[in-house]
Amino acid sequence: MAGNSFGNVFRITTFGESHGQAIGVILDGCPAGIPIDISEVQAQLDRRRPGQNDLVTQRQEKDEVHILSGIFEGKTTGTPIGMILYNIDMRSTDYDNLKNLFRPGHADYTYFKKYGIRDHRGSGRASARETAARVAAGAIALKLLAYYNIKITGYLISIGTIKAVEREISIIEQNKVRCPDVNAAKKMETYIQELKDAGDSAGGVIEVIAKGVPPGLGEPVFDKLSADLAKAMMSINAVKGVEIGDGFACTELKGSENNDSMLSDGFATNHAGGILGGISTGADIVVRVAVKPASSIAKTQNTLDIQGNRVEFSITGRHDPCVAIRAVPVVEAMMAITLADHLLRNRLSRLSDM
Amino acid sequence: MAGNSFGNVFRITTFGESHGQAIGVILDGCPAGIPIDISEVQAQLDRRRPGQNDLVTQRQEKDEVHILSGIFEGKTTGTPIGMILYNIDMRSTDYDNLKNLFRPGHADYTYFKKYGIRDHRGSGRASARETAARVAAGAIALKLLAYYNIKITGYLISIGTIKAVEREISIIEQNKVRCPDVNAAKKMETYIQELKDAGDSAGGVIEVIAKGVPPGLGEPVFDKLSADLAKAMMSINAVKGVEIGDGFACTELKGSENNDSMLSDGFATNHAGGILGGISTGADIVVRVAVKPASSIAKTQNTLDIQGNRVEFSITGRHDPCVAIRAVPVVEAMMAITLADHLLRNRLSRLSDM
Amino acid sequence: MAGNSFGNVFRITTFGESHGQAIGVILDGCPAGIPIDISEVQAQLDRRRPGQNDLVTQRQEKDEVHILSGIFEGKTTGTPIGMILYNIDMRSTDYDNLKNLFRPGHADYTYFKKYGIRDHRGSGRASARETAARVAAGAIALKLLAYYNIKITGYLISIGTIKAVEREISIIEQNKVRCPDVNAAKKMETYIQELKDAGDSAGGVIEVIAKGVPPGLGEPVFDKLSADLAKAMMSINAVKGVEIGDGFACTELKGSENNDSMLSDGFATNHAGGILGGISTGADIVVRVAVKPASSIAKTQNTLDIQGNRVEFSITGRHDPCVAIRAVPVVEAMMAITLADHLLRNRLSRLSDM
Amino acid sequence: MAGNSFGNVFRITTFGESHGQAIGVILDGCPAGIPIDISEVQAQLDRRRPGQNDLVTQRQEKDEVHILSGIFEGKTTGTPIGMILYNIDMRSTDYDNLKNLFRPGHADYTYFKKYGIRDHRGSGRASARETAARVAAGAIALKLLAYYNIKITGYLISIGTIKAVEREISIIEQNKVRCPDVNAAKKMETYIQELKDAGDSAGGVIEVIAKGVPPGLGEPVFDKLSADLAKAMMSINAVKGVEIGDGFACTELKGSENNDSMLSDGFATNHAGGILGGISTGADIVVRVAVKPASSIAKTQNTLDIQGNRVEFSITGRHDPCVAIRAVPVVEAMMAITLADHLLRNRLSRLSDM
Repeated sequence: MAGNSFGNVFRITTFGESHGQAIGVILDGCPAGIPIDISEVQAQLDRRRPGQNDLVTQRQEKDEVHILSGIFEGKTTGTPIGMILYNIDMRSTDYDNLKNLFRPGHADYTYFKKYGIRDHRGSGRASARETAARVAAGAIALKLLAYYNIKITGYLISIGTIKAVEREISIIEQNKVRCPDVNAAKKMETYIQELKDAGDSAGGVIEVIAKGVPPGLGEPVFDKLSADLAKAMMSINAVKGVEIGDGFACTELKGSENNDSMLSDGFATNHAGGILGGISTGADIVVRVAVKPASSIAKTQNTLDIQGNRVEFSITGRHDPCVAIRAVPVVEAMMAITLADHLLRNRLSRLSDM
Repeated sequence: MAGNSFGNVFRITTFGESHGQAIGVILDGCPAGIPIDISEVQAQLDRRRPGQNDLVTQRQEKDEVHILSGIFEGKTTGTPIGMILYNIDMRSTDYDNLKNLFRPGHADYTYFKKYGIRDHRGSGRASARETAARVAAGAIALKLLAYYNIKITGYLISIGTIKAVEREISIIEQNKVRCPDVNAAKKMETYIQELKDAGDSAGGVIEVIAKGVPPGLGEPVFDKLSADLAKAMMSINAVKGVEIGDGFACTELKGSENNDSMLSDGFATNHAGGILGGISTGADIVVRVAVKPASSIAKTQNTLDIQGNRVEFSITGRHDPCVAIRAVPVVEAMMAITLADHLLRNRLSRLSDM
Repeated sequence: MAGNSFGNVFRITTFGESHGQAIGVILDGCPAGIPIDISEVQAQLDRRRPGQNDLVTQRQEKDEVHILSGIFEGKTTGTPIGMILYNIDMRSTDYDNLKNLFRPGHADYTYFKKYGIRDHRGSGRASARETAARVAAGAIALKLLAYYNIKITGYLISIGTIKAVEREISIIEQNKVRCPDVNAAKKMETYIQELKDAGDSAGGVIEVIAKGVPPGLGEPVFDKLSADLAKAMMSINAVKGVEIGDGFACTELKGSENNDSMLSDGFATNHAGGILGGISTGADIVVRVAVKPASSIAKTQNTLDIQGNRVEFSITGRHDPCVAIRAVPVVEAMMAITLADHLLRNRLSRLSDM
Repeated sequence: MAGNSFGNVFRITTFGESHGQAIGVILDGCPAGIPIDISEVQAQLDRRRPGQNDLVTQRQEKDEVHILSGIFEGKTTGTPIGMILYNIDMRSTDYDNLKNLFRPGHADYTYFKKYGIRDHRGSGRASARETAARVAAGAIALKLLAYYNIKITGYLISIGTIKAVEREISIIEQNKVRCPDVNAAKKMETYIQELKDAGDSAGGVIEVIAKGVPPGLGEPVFDKLSADLAKAMMSINAVKGVEIGDGFACTELKGSENNDSMLSDGFATNHAGGILGGISTGADIVVRVAVKPASSIAKTQNTLDIQGNRVEFSITGRHDPCVAIRAVPVVEAMMAITLADHLLRNRLSRLSDM
């Protein structure tokens, strides 16, 4: 009810603030018998962690994961998996001047109005640091999906107005912006460096694809696979839009153009992005996610303080000039968790021999 | 779990197939004391009902609502509100030739793969007829919101490539396409008539605005107001994309452009669409929804039958050439239900004097 | 959240008041493929219905069930099953003198304090009439369980201080009090008739057994099978106690007496009532349920009215002198629903070949 | 879904195994603004902890609680409260001889059948050690309840066949068996010592009372306060029965005896245990809980091993001769959590001025 859980069967509950003791996640409903090597969880966290290159925040967090429960002799036992990451490299004093301000684009004002109280240090619970807990749980989801030969890949297809034309999957992790187009990647890197120097920030669009998803996943009418993916993505910090398959572009097509014809070996096209009637078709699941430019910028801004006075301020902490880059593994994790949940839920759809 | 419920506190469960006995909804968690006049529920259903003009399906359903429970002496009692609409004007034989086919763009194939069985008549449960139940529940939500001075308005801002420039709210219900731009509306009407004649269909984009929403609604980190709105919208038949505020367009802005500055009388701009950190800011909530062109078209198409044979067929039932038109009250209903749910959930955020 | 739903996977939502239009239930999460004959549902309702013999309420309700959705060509489709029963033989005027009173033992006072409003006619939502909806859904659960060879039997083991010694299952439905002991049954019948004549009422204890339940059902640590059964039973009108296996009596045993030894063909004893660590063992599930004497009695009583005045009154409606008799099929239904839910949930516990 | 969460609004999720790294709890939905001193949480844990006197297990765990999140400057912030207790004094080798056995009365067999895998060390997740996490969360619930002047007291009213006659609340924590009757307490202490020496164990009945609960708590028809309390209690290790008010005894009364008459200053009697129609009446909430004799006994027993061979064994670990003693704070905690949840849920029942 209070909103810190996601998923029905494969269900995560995250906790922790950016500058508190630790952040973490409890994963309940993971089936017994999945082999888990902690290094696989750590590897995903390393893809998200701060300080990984010079285009992301320079906060130095190793984000070392500790598994507290739910795994015995290298396998999941069916009991809840608890994982925590201690907060190490905090500079809470960076936030002293922001304590009584409502930073534009941030959750400062809304948390204050909602709870009457807020942990201002590093945005507290509203910090994107919370997404590390999602990535840890997502790593377990990926293991479950891998067992059923489902694979997820995310990447940036635009930053600002620079758009990727190519989809060369093999190069994604070889550039600093996780872009599958080598030319676009170069331009993006330059653009972000410029914005960083100017104390500004950029937005971007992430595309994420799941291959190998069997038909049948998704629970009509409200828990459609598309609906749960939309929620999963929109729950990520800074996300302002989600589309499936052709998304907004399909509104310009005619029905005769948009309908994907069925062939004996699959669909002739995939305008639908792998989902019809809210249920997976067996074709690739294709989702695109709009990430706004980071709200934390060094440029001087105007805002109100808690007393309602108009004040001028600038943010001096260590921040991402383009949060979309580090959001890629988060988007993958949320897709993995959503698919794992629906994969399990789909076991319930028919009478069977148990 | 099986997906036919939406909302946490203000929670609806819908049931019923297009060509079964009836469709309906149980609304649980509606607070006691709301005055309800059945004519207000009926009025919303009339806005969604088939046959309302010549650009929508000609199935003749009066969609007369029956309230079975939960209201006593004109007021809600806090017990579940049951509402049903009988199916009257069914022509199930229209579907005889489709019984063993998987219509492209439809849920035929996916339901069959999921359940191993399906009610093929009029798409069964996958029919957009189910959304009438949402509109009935939405009418109650609107009453609750009205008590707190919250108002919701939806309209079409594009059909195919025709886009509305104006936002003249007063004319929305005065044209057949619910468009707030009189010139665009005319072009849209003509375009739909052409498609209808050609046995084809059009998609469109709906914009929906909520005014008067207090700050504080939304439950971080997963049940963000934006996340729940995204799910609400994406759960509607034919929807393939959702965005909040500037949505995908904000990815092209810089942080310094996208951040909404705070003034003493509110926000200087509303790029955020009224939501920051997943919580309402007090500014207008702005959501846009991409509706694909209807999959049911009269044009001859190719597909597979249940045996895997490639077959040619055409659809002869009565269908909407542009489902986005009748989706407007559905989008409003889903927003109303989501806001009603979060309005109530927000009562739980603080210690209070009960 | 508002409490009118039960079950997680196999989930029912009931609605309706005693003197409203209808009562009903939506069953969501029933797997596709179960053959359902409406007469089987009706047969269970007939076991619960008013007027079935002279020791129960003489309200004449046929309780004819209407299935509105979810079944196609005689089988469940995986979509929600909607069922309603219209209220026919209402005498709302019987309640006119009770309109402003809080009847002792009833929910009048508590509903009024909770909601500030109440439907006083026949106890409204608090009426045991609501349990008919549970029995209808329970009939579907029984079909699911039967497919897996699970069988449920309930009966009265005491009324007042008269206790059954024998457990002759075959005679349960052959006496008016559903007692498996022919001698006790006769005494019970006489006792109830005496109380009825005296304008009073009797309580009783129901025992219910499930045979054929496989080991593994129940989800530690909170959704233990025992915990969910306890909730299921305690949610039934007039129930004030629940025990599993030896229950309260086992507190007088030593561990060495109470531990059920394992043999190669099962357990040597069944003090545990078929549940260990909250999970079924494969032995019979044994539950006992305490049902209080009906609160509606013809005898003159004292109470308060809404203004706080002390008043004398007597109840003239048609009521059960011993609600435990008609509660037997309700107890069976709630056990069936709980087991069906856990049978399905247990599909999720392990990695499998899907 | 997987069962490790309890509560709807005030919701806990526990994790951890007896011999793993740590056990813990995430409390989501705790309102902002409650002052929390960690020593208050620790004080409750100290009442439950092993080794507190010579009649309980001698495992030496300080059970020191660490609060990881959700509290800022001494107050709850509305974000999830994470708390962990590291496992320190484990002797996992004590369990080596039990690795391939199914101990009678334990969850060994059922976990193995459910998950196909189990952490055998100290019963793993099935250990009563998990209840420490409940007590930690319960301490926060008690703080919330205290703000609204609700107070909870639990104690033992019987061990074996020794029953308390008095209810002298002030002496409960002054004897080793938490009994409110000084004479009974002495007999109980002697009896437990005898059983301990004999390698056996005793059961008992706990009574728990909540004073100051306002009328209106409980959500009909399934989430009745009585139903949720029954589930809460039955979810505790070793509990086999629950009753409200007079419970099983009320089945022997007549309606005219059992109905609690209303007076201008409250109820004349409290047979109902403070709950009518599933909703609190304002009178004391009275619940009794049957705790079975501990399954871990030193006496030689027979059982099966994983291969199905009949084997003789005895348990050498450090165990409680009467788990009911340390279960008292657990029962209180579960009542506190249930009441906190319903106190908050009841904010949703009416239209209000928000």
